[in-house]
Amino acid sequence: MSDPLTSGATIGILGGGQLGRMLSAAASRLGLRTHIYEPGANPPAGDVAHRVTTASYEDEAALAAFADSVDVVTYEFENIPTAALDLLDSKAMIRPGREALRISQDRLTEKTFLQGLGLKTAPFADISDLPGLEAALATIGAPAILKTRRFGYDGQGQARLKTPDDAASALAEMRGAPAILEGFVTFSREISVIAARGVTGEIACYDPGENVHVDGILHTTDVPARLTPAQRSDAVLLAANILNALDYVGVLGVELFVTDAGLVVNEIAPRVHNSGHWTQNGCAVDQFEQHIRAVAGWPLGDGTRHSDVQMENLIGEAVLGAHDLAKESATALHLYGKTEVKAGRKMGHVNRIRSAGK
Amino acid sequence: MSDPLTSGATIGILGGGQLGRMLSAAASRLGLRTHIYEPGANPPAGDVAHRVTTASYEDEAALAAFADSVDVVTYEFENIPTAALDLLDSKAMIRPGREALRISQDRLTEKTFLQGLGLKTAPFADISDLPGLEAALATIGAPAILKTRRFGYDGQGQARLKTPDDAASALAEMRGAPAILEGFVTFSREISVIAARGVTGEIACYDPGENVHVDGILHTTDVPARLTPAQRSDAVLLAANILNALDYVGVLGVELFVTDAGLVVNEIAPRVHNSGHWTQNGCAVDQFEQHIRAVAGWPLGDGTRHSDVQMENLIGEAVLGAHDLAKESATALHLYGKTEVKAGRKMGHVNRIRSAGK
Repeated sequence: MSDPLTSGATIGILGGGQLGRMLSAAASRLGLRTHIYEPGANPPAGDVAHRVTTASYEDEAALAAFADSVDVVTYEFENIPTAALDLLDSKAMIRPGREALRISQDRLTEKTFLQGLGLKTAPFADISDLPGLEAALATIGAPAILKTRRFGYDGQGQARLKTPDDAASALAEMRGAPAILEGFVTFSREISVIAARGVTGEIACYDPGENVHVDGILHTTDVPARLTPAQRSDAVLLAANILNALDYVGVLGVELFVTDAGLVVNEIAPRVHNSGHWTQNGCAVDQFEQHIRAVAGWPLGDGTRHSDVQMENLIGEAVLGAHDLAKESATALHLYGKTEVKAGRKMGHVNRIRSAGK
Repeated sequence: MSDPLTSGATIGILGGGQLGRMLSAAASRLGLRTHIYEPGANPPAGDVAHRVTTASYEDEAALAAFADSVDVVTYEFENIPTAALDLLDSKAMIRPGREALRISQDRLTEKTFLQGLGLKTAPFADISDLPGLEAALATIGAPAILKTRRFGYDGQGQARLKTPDDAASALAEMRGAPAILEGFVTFSREISVIAARGVTGEIACYDPGENVHVDGILHTTDVPARLTPAQRSDAVLLAANILNALDYVGVLGVELFVTDAGLVVNEIAPRVHNSGHWTQNGCAVDQFEQHIRAVAGWPLGDGTRHSDVQMENLIGEAVLGAHDLAKESATALHLYGKTEVKAGRKMGHVNRIRSAGK
């Protein structure tokens, strides 16, 4: 453990999307600078960063210079190539650590890890060929979902199997990538817990949010989620269990299904999470600042919910209504500065303050 | 009136201090970029700006290139040299407009303007020499304050006169600059109103805050201020009166004394104001975003106070306690990224959320 970062120190962020953008703005509140590393030109995070490196994750010279220029490295997405991480790791401190990345980069490793902690997951099987898929379907049953083990997000790299007859076509959609078959979970609602762990092991969890997905993309998160006190407590303890097992430093998102048999973990994300955006307008310290505090070695802040909030994502053309949303009362608008509107693209979100909480 | 700015458009900000820094972060929430113009190297606002120009206000080429690169020019301080404004004005739109700057740059012009609107001010007199000062003291009385007409801030360029005998020494402190003598006002408290006016003339006022100054520098602002409903209403109407008279676009700070004879205007600032920092944690839309909305031609946002807040400035070495403040519950920390701690220097502030408001 090193000393906390002080004013003027620089946090390196891998990835320059909206999460990096909001992390940068949060870092500025603590007097810290950011340096964004992003292959794409003009990344959203670049608008609010002290420095931007535009280079690929294969560019060893750029990675080395980046590592040398920062006081700590963090990231806004988990699918960072291993070779890049190895190089960065040799020159700089990476928070959250490599173990969290190793586990969350692979759906099979992640589910195995979660089960090892005694947590419930959907039934799953490692799939490498058609006979294996057919055997797994016989056990897990249909409907089910076949997913690539790595590099999936927002419903990408997934094929639904309504019946066992869909096996061959679903496998073809994986294009030869290692895959995992996941059984369906019957749930009453989806929630997520955004949790943080500091360098001294202290843990702070935000109130669970209730998520609604549309077309595989998060649409709304409502806080508080409709949960019993026992469910709320289970959700927080479970997140703390994961954080401690990983000796984690930073913010982690845990997606959960609420079922009659208890909470089932859908997936974990070793970073700030879309379902935690409500914290920007519901708490004194939001998930972005909490993450920056943790990776900078600062004490965690107060994430108590002071207001009820509904977060709604602005996907694709929904952003064209931004000026009208801007007029709504008790509404905070957050746009990502993306100039090209594409279907399915996250362009911004709004946080509607529903009432004073507690 | 031009079209509202859209994602990727750039707001030019004259001045790179903490106000520019927080304006930049707010602009990012609306998908907008900022370009900071600042003579000093490594300005605080540069950490969260898309672009920074380091040049003096006498550098015509730099000013011209800056004006050409932005969609609108705004500023974080009022003492911008007139020649620089003339050059910028010929190439770009300046919001708030020149009239607000002309008036607020000169204490005498400002007080005359305010009296012309029927508003109360401290008694004052234009001072150019010792006989004039002695004559003014005979009318206004002592104690009184002699201030330079231009370029004063945070108590700089001011001399207190306890008795008429202090006239010569006070005048010497002005170093030949045009000056204004101001009489003392007996007040029960100091408050300020942060008000905004959009391009269509709509006005939004934040709840008045109650200010405590120490050594001529703002120490704390508490909202809500202890006011009667009539005083609250007067404060807001008075601010609206000023905004309309100036055909103002942006956020304006109005400092007021609460006296037995009603509200007396101390001074106005044509920009976001230190006493409005509480809005960052008390409202859905804070003063920084409200200013950006106005100058970008957007609709004003909802500045309703959702929580009571106390803002406390971290002046000089007070910032060394930041890590302890970071642990406080219901407390939001805002540091400006300044690496050199100096006595009297504004290093950051904290917003303590006192309770859910309304």
